[in-house]
Amino acid sequence: MNLRKTTKRSLTEQIVDQLEQLIETGEWPLGSKIPPEPELMGQLEVSRNTLREAIKALTHAGLLKTRQGDGTYVSASSSLGPVLQKRVNKTDYIQSLEVRHALEREAAYLAANNRTESDIEQIRLCFQCQNEAIQNGQYEDFADWDVAFHKAIVAASKNGLLMDLYEHITDALKEMVTKITAKTGDAYYCKDTHEQLLNAIVEQDQVRAVDAVHHYIEESKQHFIQLGGSMNEIN
Amino acid sequence: MNLRKTTKRSLTEQIVDQLEQLIETGEWPLGSKIPPEPELMGQLEVSRNTLREAIKALTHAGLLKTRQGDGTYVSASSSLGPVLQKRVNKTDYIQSLEVRHALEREAAYLAANNRTESDIEQIRLCFQCQNEAIQNGQYEDFADWDVAFHKAIVAASKNGLLMDLYEHITDALKEMVTKITAKTGDAYYCKDTHEQLLNAIVEQDQVRAVDAVHHYIEESKQHFIQLGGSMNEIN
Repeated sequence: MNLRKTTKRSLTEQIVDQLEQLIETGEWPLGSKIPPEPELMGQLEVSRNTLREAIKALTHAGLLKTRQGDGTYVSASSSLGPVLQKRVNKTDYIQSLEVRHALEREAAYLAANNRTESDIEQIRLCFQCQNEAIQNGQYEDFADWDVAFHKAIVAASKNGLLMDLYEHITDALKEMVTKITAKTGDAYYCKDTHEQLLNAIVEQDQVRAVDAVHHYIEESKQHFIQLGGSMNEIN
Repeated sequence: MNLRKTTKRSLTEQIVDQLEQLIETGEWPLGSKIPPEPELMGQLEVSRNTLREAIKALTHAGLLKTRQGDGTYVSASSSLGPVLQKRVNKTDYIQSLEVRHALEREAAYLAANNRTESDIEQIRLCFQCQNEAIQNGQYEDFADWDVAFHKAIVAASKNGLLMDLYEHITDALKEMVTKITAKTGDAYYCKDTHEQLLNAIVEQDQVRAVDAVHHYIEESKQHFIQLGGSMNEIN
């Protein structure tokens, strides 16, 4: 009986893994509705109970969401996402900035070496849109382009683990950026250091790229501390 | 009916959150057996079904493990652990090193500022044990002390998010360190840069601390590339 139980449990785990892979590879894209139960039971050759247990597990993991009377939808593209996001939400702003510093610095260092022409185009586009947004006082657009700018640099690093870690840390930080920028306007935006970072990556200057990251993170830290230094002051 | 369903689902989620908190705060320590079902049902005031669903979710998340005919045990101290570990296992060695670089560099930078006397004692102890182990050719002990050395520095950073991220990335890397060291002996061990890091943290010299991390990561990278540069060559 012990043996049967083990096999049954590992079968669910196998189904969980298979479904997770469909999500992580994008075969089931974010936001899409997954196939109906009978179809999946047939394709995977499993019982309804096993399938339901697997779907429940992925729902708890934050990857799927069931809408009553409608169906089940993909709600995150990797199991790392919801878990990291939850963890970052429990972290204060300064500590999150320090982790951003760690990841963005490494990304800048690698991107200065590994960036392609199309990476540069993407980073430059985000930089330009970011500037336009802040000039027009569109603080939410600004936060979007700012996050896109940093993500484009992380993508240019060609390090998949760094990209995954960064993806979910920024999601949780974006709201904060919007709030701070709305409160302080372009005083908060470190345009010069962002431009220095862009140029250093274009010129493949690793030292200057890393230096730029260091400076805008320190600027953000100081700025936040001057604002009151606590989440409550911002909210 | 829609309303009732939502409430029921969120009740399970609440129980999941509560149990997760007991695990993450260490009230239910790693490796311990959780209280029996009837006791938990009473304390949490929930039905058997809800409790079982919550425990199943935490089992799938890797936090709990049920042993048939025995009980349920705590198998990880945070939900971030199993998910990160799984992700790192899919990553090649060079990319993992780059992420280590990011986290250890930031840790060194912060530790040089925030370390206490007891942090220094702990880091120094690990450094000494590491040296003894390698001199005696005890490669597994060496890997243990090496990981402990780096974890002590990350702890001295006083950044909880950094500690959590690092904790689970090193777990997956330790095996690799053991294998490489066993193959190459102390040729692999960057004793000078580790000592430089220790001294820089003692002297609160952020620049030298960061510089030391940069050097031993670059040494490890080069060393690995010389060894053949692929996981398969090592295994």
